[in-house]
Amino acid sequence: MSTARPIENLADWLAEFAETLRTGSADDVAELFVPGGFWRDFAAFTWDLRTLEGRDQIRAMIAATPDASKADNWRIVAGPATKDREGEIRFETAHGLGRGYVRIDGGLCTTLLTVIDDIKGHEEPRGRRRRHGAPEDARDPAANWKDLRDREERELGRDVQPYVLIVGGGQGGLALGARLRQLDVPALIVDKHPRTGDQWRSRYHSLLLHDPIWYDHLPYVPFPATWPVFTPKDKLGDWLEAYAKIMELNVWNGTACSKASYDEAAGEWRVELQKDGETVVVRPKHLVIATGNAGRPNLPAFPGAESFAGTIVHSSAYSDPANYQGRKVVVIGSNNSAQDICADLAGHGVDVSMVQRDSTHIIRSDTFIKFLMTNYSEDAVEAGMDCDLADLLNASMPLRLMPTVVAPAYEAIAKYDADFYKSLEDIGFMHDFGEDGTGMPGKFLRRASGYYIDVGAVEMLTSGKIKLFSDVGIDHIETGKIVLTDGREIEADDIICATGFGNMGQWATDLISPEVGEKVGPVWGYGSGTTGDPGPWEGEMRNLWKPTAQEGLWFHAGNLAQNRFYSRVLALQLKARQLELPAEPYRPQAD
Amino acid sequence: MSTARPIENLADWLAEFAETLRTGSADDVAELFVPGGFWRDFAAFTWDLRTLEGRDQIRAMIAATPDASKADNWRIVAGPATKDREGEIRFETAHGLGRGYVRIDGGLCTTLLTVIDDIKGHEEPRGRRRRHGAPEDARDPAANWKDLRDREERELGRDVQPYVLIVGGGQGGLALGARLRQLDVPALIVDKHPRTGDQWRSRYHSLLLHDPIWYDHLPYVPFPATWPVFTPKDKLGDWLEAYAKIMELNVWNGTACSKASYDEAAGEWRVELQKDGETVVVRPKHLVIATGNAGRPNLPAFPGAESFAGTIVHSSAYSDPANYQGRKVVVIGSNNSAQDICADLAGHGVDVSMVQRDSTHIIRSDTFIKFLMTNYSEDAVEAGMDCDLADLLNASMPLRLMPTVVAPAYEAIAKYDADFYKSLEDIGFMHDFGEDGTGMPGKFLRRASGYYIDVGAVEMLTSGKIKLFSDVGIDHIETGKIVLTDGREIEADDIICATGFGNMGQWATDLISPEVGEKVGPVWGYGSGTTGDPGPWEGEMRNLWKPTAQEGLWFHAGNLAQNRFYSRVLALQLKARQLELPAEPYRPQAD
Repeated sequence: MSTARPIENLADWLAEFAETLRTGSADDVAELFVPGGFWRDFAAFTWDLRTLEGRDQIRAMIAATPDASKADNWRIVAGPATKDREGEIRFETAHGLGRGYVRIDGGLCTTLLTVIDDIKGHEEPRGRRRRHGAPEDARDPAANWKDLRDREERELGRDVQPYVLIVGGGQGGLALGARLRQLDVPALIVDKHPRTGDQWRSRYHSLLLHDPIWYDHLPYVPFPATWPVFTPKDKLGDWLEAYAKIMELNVWNGTACSKASYDEAAGEWRVELQKDGETVVVRPKHLVIATGNAGRPNLPAFPGAESFAGTIVHSSAYSDPANYQGRKVVVIGSNNSAQDICADLAGHGVDVSMVQRDSTHIIRSDTFIKFLMTNYSEDAVEAGMDCDLADLLNASMPLRLMPTVVAPAYEAIAKYDADFYKSLEDIGFMHDFGEDGTGMPGKFLRRASGYYIDVGAVEMLTSGKIKLFSDVGIDHIETGKIVLTDGREIEADDIICATGFGNMGQWATDLISPEVGEKVGPVWGYGSGTTGDPGPWEGEMRNLWKPTAQEGLWFHAGNLAQNRFYSRVLALQLKARQLELPAEPYRPQAD
Repeated sequence: MSTARPIENLADWLAEFAETLRTGSADDVAELFVPGGFWRDFAAFTWDLRTLEGRDQIRAMIAATPDASKADNWRIVAGPATKDREGEIRFETAHGLGRGYVRIDGGLCTTLLTVIDDIKGHEEPRGRRRRHGAPEDARDPAANWKDLRDREERELGRDVQPYVLIVGGGQGGLALGARLRQLDVPALIVDKHPRTGDQWRSRYHSLLLHDPIWYDHLPYVPFPATWPVFTPKDKLGDWLEAYAKIMELNVWNGTACSKASYDEAAGEWRVELQKDGETVVVRPKHLVIATGNAGRPNLPAFPGAESFAGTIVHSSAYSDPANYQGRKVVVIGSNNSAQDICADLAGHGVDVSMVQRDSTHIIRSDTFIKFLMTNYSEDAVEAGMDCDLADLLNASMPLRLMPTVVAPAYEAIAKYDADFYKSLEDIGFMHDFGEDGTGMPGKFLRRASGYYIDVGAVEMLTSGKIKLFSDVGIDHIETGKIVLTDGREIEADDIICATGFGNMGQWATDLISPEVGEKVGPVWGYGSGTTGDPGPWEGEMRNLWKPTAQEGLWFHAGNLAQNRFYSRVLALQLKARQLELPAEPYRPQAD
């Protein structure tokens, strides 16, 4: 270390860190962290999404990253998230501008987050960097904005190849497309639905977003101050459609991706698209799968299903309760979709039963917002915490530490809503708070399943408006009924299987090849070793928003907030490649 | 006055003012202003837009406004616009919530602005008042958002009468419609164009907004941080179209208003609409003309025009320079449209001449922003000045005082751009800074004409790319030429008349009756006694955003910024009527 002065505050630590990075050894850098300290880096130093845990991993990364010594201009940013021993930071790397968050304890760092925020010389044209508005085009100097936009729409994917092809035009594809547009990376988005927003419009009648408005803003165009707290599905569909137009995104609707193969020699993809009955081949350098984490319905083959007289559909195909008037409906499942669909049907006077096969975590919507969404709220907004800063704070906590923050919150929640949880117990509903007490956040990040944010179904369950069959499986199906594993029977005119979704990584097998699917592996989860998310420990979400084992193949998924935050990180990794910057992801040596 | 304590600062004055309003006489209130002090009120006390000039007018208003004593909760709001002797304020009236701005000097008020901002119990659902999102509807409790929105679109104007009919769906109609939507006032917007935004799309090829982005935000949905400084016309058209959708506005496109009459007995309008070949009669309580200040082209009947071989069109019909390739074009006029069209044509290699008949004021775009737009800039944004606060500051200056602020700025501008103005003089361009040196702002508010914000045409004029014929009139037109009043002739294949627009008030005559047109009078200007804006002094814009002499008839117009600010003031006046509040406009007794 360069000085003997004791580190007393954040500014001291940051100054020492900056100086040590510049002039010290990898060992010296590691010594500025507590022994078990964390450095979470999103493409600022590692050109990857990676959490380094402990001094050894930090030392190894620095030793393998000579550019780290060029990082510069580290500074603390005053604001609602900056306090004595933790705060928001800014810095520059060899090629980029970064932001981050640091916590210290006893003069040493406990957690450091570094995130790429811009590439030098190619910064987003926001604020003072806005463009003038008058187009400049060498091919057609007299062209106006519309001439150039029309030309682009005409040529992209035909005469001009996109640098990036994004498969899926939901919030993920659109947010990434918007980021790439701002960075001047030519991108084409393809989506099988006829209209942008149809992913949401086509879902069940009563659906509102379960996350509140403050958590849901897309990049660049926040929802208006008068937008409701929970966005109705069709309203979100219209918003996405307007967003695509406003942000000048190149979207081919009614277009399915049928086949992709990577040409190693050319360093580009050959992708077949089915567009209005025509096969169009495009050759992007990068292929981003953004088809959604809920894009592959799981429809189990229950014995006897072929003899059933009514309809059996997956929850993703359920839409209108009017189709079920006067019928007896059984919903198999007890998580978000099952609960919402049961409530939708019961609310429309339909006789509905829920079959709960496994334990589910439930949290009341108000409680969720009060205890787990404090940084995404009107209070936070009034305190100057915009969602970008809240996202940074969110990312500042390494996944390894998540239980230390979330489990105590859940202890408080269990007390706060004791009557609510008692009422679930009383009807025999199998309830849990997650294997390590991390409830909704834990289940979401590990398997995107196993929970319900209650907006009304629980009251219908406890009052009997929704009939509950719990702690039981499906033995088989007969003409007009379901026979359960404990011998009970449920009369059924129709069956809705809220039985979840297959892994998004399967698209690599389906679109590219089994070899690539095998090489890349599953998407989502981080090797927590809990149900549905086996180890080994990864420390970051698998295959999301970062390089995969297949060159030029990327996955982008998540809720609106994840899309907002990670779309920038992913877009900047793609931009770095377009610029041919030395952006080789850091790969630790095997032990 | 209630105390003998000298007033030393803003807080003292405001406390004294609040107490005096509550318990003092009208005389006491007037004594708190300097003798020539101003109280500008936008519907907070007068239910009108009105500037009271001097103690007598203030005293008379207070004496006639018993509700003024119920005003309460006056407070100074800290922020970038609040200083020692002036600042932003908030208050409550008998029925509303208000904001404003006050300046003091020597313990007395020099200017006070009071603006209605919300109606108590009916506040806009913004921020903490956001709606939940799940619809509640007694007629159809199971309806979702889309069901209700579809029903509204189906019924409004047919089975359900709008409370307000807005004629014109440009930025004015849409901004007002958005305000009314938030206030739960049923409104129908009709527009003759096939698509929302076509008002802008149909204009000339090279058009960008002349005002910069920071000045142009619509209510509720600000432009993104990456939006260009000057919005291209088609991009604005697309934005307006998305805005109408996002804000859930009821717009009938392809619909012309052909006839309106007021039924005194029923207190409602009978309005005939021509929609897709069908005549639809609607019966709104209020009719708002928002057809734009540039909706009635003036096409002078030049002698000999009938013998001209080429085309003669008004500037509003000019669109594509491709139509003029290889032709000699003469543009009559020298203000904004004339300059832009000449630059557009010259930029596309067309031989173009400008005929300047009257003096024009020109200001360079950069200079305009630097000297006259300081509160609408990236600097202002960084200082925490959003456009709502900038609008308030803008409104805080009574029109009578405008020259005291603007003329000195123009003295600086004349020096700053001395070379620029010299270059105009050198080519014989007739230039002025307005009769009282208020240049662009003065000409805009008084006659919406007589100026050009230079974005390139001047360089083309001074370099001869646009030929200038100045200080001259049109004597007559012959087959292939224009003969000027000084005997000079200009060869012409086509003529474009940038000859301005007729008064918007004429719509009252055309749509309703000559009697109503006569009673209401012209729209725009404020009786400044300058060219195009004869007295008597009105003190506020004529007939805009406030009650007219015809019950239930309103005019709404202006640039994007005026629309943003005044749409709220107008919407709240309409809401007060819907609620049947005692909102009778204050009318001073004749002397």
